[in-house]
Amino acid sequence: MGMFSADIKTMNDLYVHQLQDIYYAEKQILKSLPDMIGKASNGELKNGLQKHLQETENHVARLEQVFKLHDLKPKAVDCPAIDGIIEEADEIVGEVDDKEVLDAAIVAAAQAVEHYEITRYGTLIAWAHQMGRDDAAAIMQKTLEEEKAADKKLTAVAESNVNRQAAS
Amino acid sequence: MGMFSADIKTMNDLYVHQLQDIYYAEKQILKSLPDMIGKASNGELKNGLQKHLQETENHVARLEQVFKLHDLKPKAVDCPAIDGIIEEADEIVGEVDDKEVLDAAIVAAAQAVEHYEITRYGTLIAWAHQMGRDDAAAIMQKTLEEEKAADKKLTAVAESNVNRQAAS
Repeated sequence: MGMFSADIKTMNDLYVHQLQDIYYAEKQILKSLPDMIGKASNGELKNGLQKHLQETENHVARLEQVFKLHDLKPKAVDCPAIDGIIEEADEIVGEVDDKEVLDAAIVAAAQAVEHYEITRYGTLIAWAHQMGRDDAAAIMQKTLEEEKAADKKLTAVAESNVNRQAAS
Repeated sequence: MGMFSADIKTMNDLYVHQLQDIYYAEKQILKSLPDMIGKASNGELKNGLQKHLQETENHVARLEQVFKLHDLKPKAVDCPAIDGIIEEADEIVGEVDDKEVLDAAIVAAAQAVEHYEITRYGTLIAWAHQMGRDDAAAIMQKTLEEEKAADKKLTAVAESNVNRQAAS
């Protein structure tokens, strides 16, 4: 959550900080997805990630809407968690040659990213409700549902890969 | 996933690497949980984390069983993802003074940890089945269920906190 945590005194401070954290995370994901798409071989995986890239652009725009609802300028703070998750993904995706193994590694890396977003949006939505900001919660709920759907799609890709191997 | 990714050629290599990654993660979680427990104020949260500390000791032991099933010595590789998640948790937990805000931050941090474990065990179980190792999958399934239960418990703690505030 970056270097600003000393300023966190109230639930509102914590909420704003978490918004800035996920805003940074979404932007980092936007930067890293094209590389994953370029390296994926399985068509279903490639298309799923491509669709999720477009969704991620919307997620950034929705966060900007949420900042606006709270009369705040969109701001990103460093997020060591997403940096670590992406660093781990880049390391492995950059090193595996075999296409099937690489696809499996990409699915696993993308699911780690999805789960980070699922937990962060889940928390933000709960806090928004707690502070009586159902308007902000409703916007982030749309994103949370897309993150969960993306995670399920990745599980389906992984399972269809297993079934294909079993049938071959 | 540390510095060993250049050695990943097969699904088996990827699987073993991921086992070493989550083994490292569980050990780091074991180190960081006592600090979170010490800083939590809400009794339900404190007890929940205490119970999860004991479960985490079992998770480490179960991973050692899995390594043994595969005739491997337990080994941990650096995992930048969990390091980043814990770094973020430590930063925030170390800086917030207000007890309620601190509890909310601890719940959020613990849920980020749980979600990382949920995604990694989900992947490992799928890969174990894919490689015909239902024995290893069954052991890790027990851990996955405990991680999911811990995550739900944390959500319940967060919600009961909201209800308490609404009633006050």
